[in-house]
Amino acid sequence: MKILIINGPNLNLLGIREKNIYGDSSFEPFFIQMQGKYSDINLEYFQSNSEGKLIDKIQETGFSYDGIILNAGGYTHTSVAIRDAIAAVSTPVIEVHISNIQKREEFRHTSLISPVCKGSIIGFGFNSYRLAIESFI
Amino acid sequence: MKILIINGPNLNLLGIREKNIYGDSSFEPFFIQMQGKYSDINLEYFQSNSEGKLIDKIQETGFSYDGIILNAGGYTHTSVAIRDAIAAVSTPVIEVHISNIQKREEFRHTSLISPVCKGSIIGFGFNSYRLAIESFI
Amino acid sequence: MKILIINGPNLNLLGIREKNIYGDSSFEPFFIQMQGKYSDINLEYFQSNSEGKLIDKIQETGFSYDGIILNAGGYTHTSVAIRDAIAAVSTPVIEVHISNIQKREEFRHTSLISPVCKGSIIGFGFNSYRLAIESFI
Amino acid sequence: MKILIINGPNLNLLGIREKNIYGDSSFEPFFIQMQGKYSDINLEYFQSNSEGKLIDKIQETGFSYDGIILNAGGYTHTSVAIRDAIAAVSTPVIEVHISNIQKREEFRHTSLISPVCKGSIIGFGFNSYRLAIESFI
Amino acid sequence: MKILIINGPNLNLLGIREKNIYGDSSFEPFFIQMQGKYSDINLEYFQSNSEGKLIDKIQETGFSYDGIILNAGGYTHTSVAIRDAIAAVSTPVIEVHISNIQKREEFRHTSLISPVCKGSIIGFGFNSYRLAIESFI
Amino acid sequence: MKILIINGPNLNLLGIREKNIYGDSSFEPFFIQMQGKYSDINLEYFQSNSEGKLIDKIQETGFSYDGIILNAGGYTHTSVAIRDAIAAVSTPVIEVHISNIQKREEFRHTSLISPVCKGSIIGFGFNSYRLAIESFI
Amino acid sequence: MKILIINGPNLNLLGIREKNIYGDSSFEPFFIQMQGKYSDINLEYFQSNSEGKLIDKIQETGFSYDGIILNAGGYTHTSVAIRDAIAAVSTPVIEVHISNIQKREEFRHTSLISPVCKGSIIGFGFNSYRLAIESFI
Amino acid sequence: MKILIINGPNLNLLGIREKNIYGDSSFEPFFIQMQGKYSDINLEYFQSNSEGKLIDKIQETGFSYDGIILNAGGYTHTSVAIRDAIAAVSTPVIEVHISNIQKREEFRHTSLISPVCKGSIIGFGFNSYRLAIESFI
Amino acid sequence: MKILIINGPNLNLLGIREKNIYGDSSFEPFFIQMQGKYSDINLEYFQSNSEGKLIDKIQETGFSYDGIILNAGGYTHTSVAIRDAIAAVSTPVIEVHISNIQKREEFRHTSLISPVCKGSIIGFGFNSYRLAIESFI
Amino acid sequence: MKILIINGPNLNLLGIREKNIYGDSSFEPFFIQMQGKYSDINLEYFQSNSEGKLIDKIQETGFSYDGIILNAGGYTHTSVAIRDAIAAVSTPVIEVHISNIQKREEFRHTSLISPVCKGSIIGFGFNSYRLAIESFI
Amino acid sequence: MKILIINGPNLNLLGIREKNIYGDSSFEPFFIQMQGKYSDINLEYFQSNSEGKLIDKIQETGFSYDGIILNAGGYTHTSVAIRDAIAAVSTPVIEVHISNIQKREEFRHTSLISPVCKGSIIGFGFNSYRLAIESFI
Amino acid sequence: MKILIINGPNLNLLGIREKNIYGDSSFEPFFIQMQGKYSDINLEYFQSNSEGKLIDKIQETGFSYDGIILNAGGYTHTSVAIRDAIAAVSTPVIEVHISNIQKREEFRHTSLISPVCKGSIIGFGFNSYRLAIESFI
Repeated sequence: MKILIINGPNLNLLGIREKNIYGDSSFEPFFIQMQGKYSDINLEYFQSNSEGKLIDKIQETGFSYDGIILNAGGYTHTSVAIRDAIAAVSTPVIEVHISNIQKREEFRHTSLISPVCKGSIIGFGFNSYRLAIESFI
Repeated sequence: MKILIINGPNLNLLGIREKNIYGDSSFEPFFIQMQGKYSDINLEYFQSNSEGKLIDKIQETGFSYDGIILNAGGYTHTSVAIRDAIAAVSTPVIEVHISNIQKREEFRHTSLISPVCKGSIIGFGFNSYRLAIESFI
Repeated sequence: MKILIINGPNLNLLGIREKNIYGDSSFEPFFIQMQGKYSDINLEYFQSNSEGKLIDKIQETGFSYDGIILNAGGYTHTSVAIRDAIAAVSTPVIEVHISNIQKREEFRHTSLISPVCKGSIIGFGFNSYRLAIESFI
Repeated sequence: MKILIINGPNLNLLGIREKNIYGDSSFEPFFIQMQGKYSDINLEYFQSNSEGKLIDKIQETGFSYDGIILNAGGYTHTSVAIRDAIAAVSTPVIEVHISNIQKREEFRHTSLISPVCKGSIIGFGFNSYRLAIESFI
Repeated sequence: MKILIINGPNLNLLGIREKNIYGDSSFEPFFIQMQGKYSDINLEYFQSNSEGKLIDKIQETGFSYDGIILNAGGYTHTSVAIRDAIAAVSTPVIEVHISNIQKREEFRHTSLISPVCKGSIIGFGFNSYRLAIESFI
Repeated sequence: MKILIINGPNLNLLGIREKNIYGDSSFEPFFIQMQGKYSDINLEYFQSNSEGKLIDKIQETGFSYDGIILNAGGYTHTSVAIRDAIAAVSTPVIEVHISNIQKREEFRHTSLISPVCKGSIIGFGFNSYRLAIESFI
Repeated sequence: MKILIINGPNLNLLGIREKNIYGDSSFEPFFIQMQGKYSDINLEYFQSNSEGKLIDKIQETGFSYDGIILNAGGYTHTSVAIRDAIAAVSTPVIEVHISNIQKREEFRHTSLISPVCKGSIIGFGFNSYRLAIESFI
Repeated sequence: MKILIINGPNLNLLGIREKNIYGDSSFEPFFIQMQGKYSDINLEYFQSNSEGKLIDKIQETGFSYDGIILNAGGYTHTSVAIRDAIAAVSTPVIEVHISNIQKREEFRHTSLISPVCKGSIIGFGFNSYRLAIESFI
Repeated sequence: MKILIINGPNLNLLGIREKNIYGDSSFEPFFIQMQGKYSDINLEYFQSNSEGKLIDKIQETGFSYDGIILNAGGYTHTSVAIRDAIAAVSTPVIEVHISNIQKREEFRHTSLISPVCKGSIIGFGFNSYRLAIESFI
Repeated sequence: MKILIINGPNLNLLGIREKNIYGDSSFEPFFIQMQGKYSDINLEYFQSNSEGKLIDKIQETGFSYDGIILNAGGYTHTSVAIRDAIAAVSTPVIEVHISNIQKREEFRHTSLISPVCKGSIIGFGFNSYRLAIESFI
Repeated sequence: MKILIINGPNLNLLGIREKNIYGDSSFEPFFIQMQGKYSDINLEYFQSNSEGKLIDKIQETGFSYDGIILNAGGYTHTSVAIRDAIAAVSTPVIEVHISNIQKREEFRHTSLISPVCKGSIIGFGFNSYRLAIESFI
Repeated sequence: MKILIINGPNLNLLGIREKNIYGDSSFEPFFIQMQGKYSDINLEYFQSNSEGKLIDKIQETGFSYDGIILNAGGYTHTSVAIRDAIAAVSTPVIEVHISNIQKREEFRHTSLISPVCKGSIIGFGFNSYRLAIESFI
């Protein structure tokens, strides 16, 4: 089973960025912990700040992987192009968010990608990723 | 550990109601299966079609249970009173939905309860409840 | 043939309430008159001010009766849960209104239940119920 | 008793046009059947694709007939001028629709003529016209 | 000097129609009185319920007359086509209304033709037409 | 003189619930204090989380009591049915709120019941109830 | 007959201000010309940039003069207080505008004062004032 | 204890202005009656039609008086500047309205000053002022 | 192959009307040129200012012609009835516009007919018609 | 003559992606066919999923090529930056779409780039590109 | 070089008012400091709470001074009349704000005066005024 | 002191692009002039058309530089991701615009980045950058 976690813009700054919202740990140690916990799954990780590269990655893996876990960051609310990429591929995509986006600014309440994802997991901190992995089992 | 699953209006008709959206199994067998799987958790279940009774239940359990898993059904989009009940209690509440509500009618895109819940799990069928249980572990 | 008339909130006050809008007769004599006129139909009547009880009743009769005639009163404009109940059952539901709701306050112009009802009859006073019965013949 | 049925634009194509929505029978046989059933009523029929001619007809009959049954088709949602004509005449006008317009595109959800009609009957197929005739009895 | 008064839909019913809004005199005697008062002006009058015929008339006179006084009735709020006709011709067009349309239903508050008219005179009863004639002198 | 205070959903949790907004005293001691202060008034109290029971109570007392003081809680912003109940009865109803609802979330800025109440008293803590009692003297 | 012309903010700059919109003559010579033309009318003139002083003036003259001609300038679109003053007095008020406000920025399309004025005359340059005087004769 | 009542635009016309809405008594006798009733309070009164003078007055008294009772009239719905003045001073300000503004035109439903006032009392006629005085005791 | 070009309101004034937008040639010479260029196609032309006659024409040709090229002019943005006619017939309809309607007033940005047309060609001057003809080859 | 076809995000998946909307052929064979058909034109092709690279390409070719044919895919509805690039260059740009975007989700109904393009061709499948090439001849 | 700084309503309370937003120094010492720093500029200062007086001042100086620096306070968001005054005069006007108004309540996000000012400087505390002076050099 | 100027999409075309809006000089000579004028500041410059690269740059410099001056071009109005990058870093960011964006199309009136920037300087041509540099001194 091959699963790819994709993190969008600014998620490379986790642990540094707005700690009151995102917590003070970076993503890499958590990812390694997940690889350990789910050692029977081929778990990969990709991060980019570029909308185009996120689309490239979804296209590249979206016909052969068993699942994609996507935290599209700020592009969640603005990118029709990422939405179209998700709709175009056959691999199921799970939308995750670390924070409860419904508690934050109004422009974060609308997700353009939700309607084309298999499901959404929102607000559990890094656990959102773990629950998404669980959903594929 | 005490966890209560609350299902709102019309979720007593699962397995009968709009099968193309909600699937063709009723909730009870799934609940029994969950009780078996998570035998170390005190897992309870409550369903009502009445907004008032749902509020009563949240108030009754919301200061002593370890977690509430709430599928508020149609009240998700209209009930300020249920939102206020969730905000009033100290037990963390997880919002779940069986179907991907963002794919459906526009009035289902707004959840009044999301901002006061700990997190939301949407679109995984009955698995949404299982992932919510997992989130408490 | 079994047909149930369901009246929602405040319709128990017909004949007392806002007579300039709803007229000055109560519903019961009219209902008895209809039972007389349509003596070959098993015509029943239910009223409640509670959204939950209206849903309970729709669920209870909605798989065995031949028709439901529903005046949901104020819940017409606010209840996704009643809408879901109508969509969930197999019995056809006809929406009726005594007054012409399009002539009144703007929040009464939107009916959440119309799209899931078989049809709507609006503005004919108590005759709206009679025409709804006719529609089942 | 003199009653006029007025059909607006494209209703001359019933039986040919979008059969999944409007059914596969044309209006004329139904009208003849109604004339037979209600032989004590002087029942007439008029159809036009022209907004101006519909207004002319409403003005021409709207002070002498006992009732007008109006399916204004696409003009229902756009014509202030037809609304004004209905408000200008003394004959009561009943609005009818074959399909459930609330289930269709959003621009069909608003009827400019409802507030000036005596009542509305929506979604019963050709039976909408029969119920409208019944309402005058 | 040649001036044409054009009245749109339902204005042929003045004196009969909604007298509380439009008064109880018909337009013709007033027009004859205006012809008498402004005997040095070639004053003509046209009325139609048809949007198309109103456009035809504007096109026909709009390159040779000195002025057009237009009460477009219900088309004021809905007709881009009449607006385009006014913009297309060289004769200046004055918009008039008998009643104060800003006091009435919200859909009457927007005039599609105002921006392409030379000016607007609203709310003076039949005097709106007299003031429009004065504006050409 | 008979006056009924009605408290809607979650107001049974006063003193426990969101203390930063609602303060840390429960309602009952305050109510007893009011009964003492206004000993010549027959002052009663009712609380329910159920929209239907609130309507039942308004109907039950709304033709015989001298005044109703209503804090409809979360139903203030969503219940057409409670609004209709207030409009249906003859007893004057005063709307009260403990907190300044205009300072809070936007969905709390609209009160569906204000237009049918005699008056509104908002933001004075428990004193809102005392001022409402004063208003009946 | 006593008629007062009131000009609101920035109309003291006519002839200097935005000449492409308002023309290049100042108001005073035009006013003197009007006094000459309508010598049997007691015609007065008042200008202020202050909303409060405009209200004071409307109150001061609004129970004894035969007519007020008001160009409220920028306050047309923002002042509920001037609207209330017009509604409060018994003298009829005519709204005038020099330019066609419907052709300009969207915020100039809404007039808060139109609904309480007797009528509106818009877009005729200084002639708007002359036509307003004519309307009182 | 020093309390100032401030009345905004057109409230100097109470008893003359729109009597069906505001009643037929002027404010002064009521104020004198209040001074009598609350003889231990230093009760003052100020009225102006000018937004600027209302702000000046709020600034002038807003650091030394014990309370301000403000009926901002038409400025309630349009003045950010008065809102800012209220927020700037330390004296608590109570918003009052004579009529039930929620029953009236839609633009009166929004109060810009409510969120910065201590509380609001709406719809009790002159009694709104008395209840506001009571609230300071 | 039979193709009909239909021009809506005011398009008979091409070459005279708003030349900065529509150019300075009339349509007829262009049409004759097209007949020459596409001599193997039976190319016809119809123009009317009347919404009703445009619908009549679409109905008349819409089951036998191979294609309709429609420039509905101002009706593009307002006519549900023309939309319904296009949806009702079996002949494919191509929407064309001479000017780039997205560059113009906001009310021209919405086309009610686009969703039921086979395709749209916008902004190429008279060449829009030529490209539409090409699309049928 | 040099013409560049630019395809935006996900259009590299044509023939694989959502075949019910976009058909089942990939773009390259069609492009080669077009090169053959229009052998006297220097026809080039560029595709990228990256907004920035699309802007780079428009800038790079937009002062020397004779035409650009742009299908901006999902960026059509969200990219002010691409719009600005089109407005910045001197080469005329034609907007094309394979599917009829007006028939699809509401967020696809607004094109940010239409107003700065020379024209738009929408809904003809791959033929949209051919017609765009034709428009340059 | 003559430059006038105009401060609108409540800015006379700087140093006292909402210190968390506006800081704790009053404006006068800063102004004197600026006069010292820019001793070759004739720098003046005016403050008023009255919209009318602000307009008077803009008119009075707006044809002879070299620059006006305007902090219109709460009038920024509501005053068409001040906007018109700025547009009417020939002196360039710079809009300044002490706080970042885009971070605050939504009604502060719209500036009616920005489009007619030469430029805007927002959010730099008192330094906003210094930068505005710099912009004139 | 290290300050970075970042220019977003299409700003590499300054001097070539829409000269009526942006002027006819390119940015580089101005930048060199600024380096000369502020020789004690380490002034750098970066331009990219790619949203992702702009984010990369903000992240790369946003913890070590003393200031960032950002003209995000078209991304100003659409990029939540750039907003999040600005909020994530510790270096203060100043928003600048060459043209007065409030005078232009409505979609340019909203800046997603303003609320997270230290301040904004808009409409001063290239001087906007100079004033931003001044703001850091």
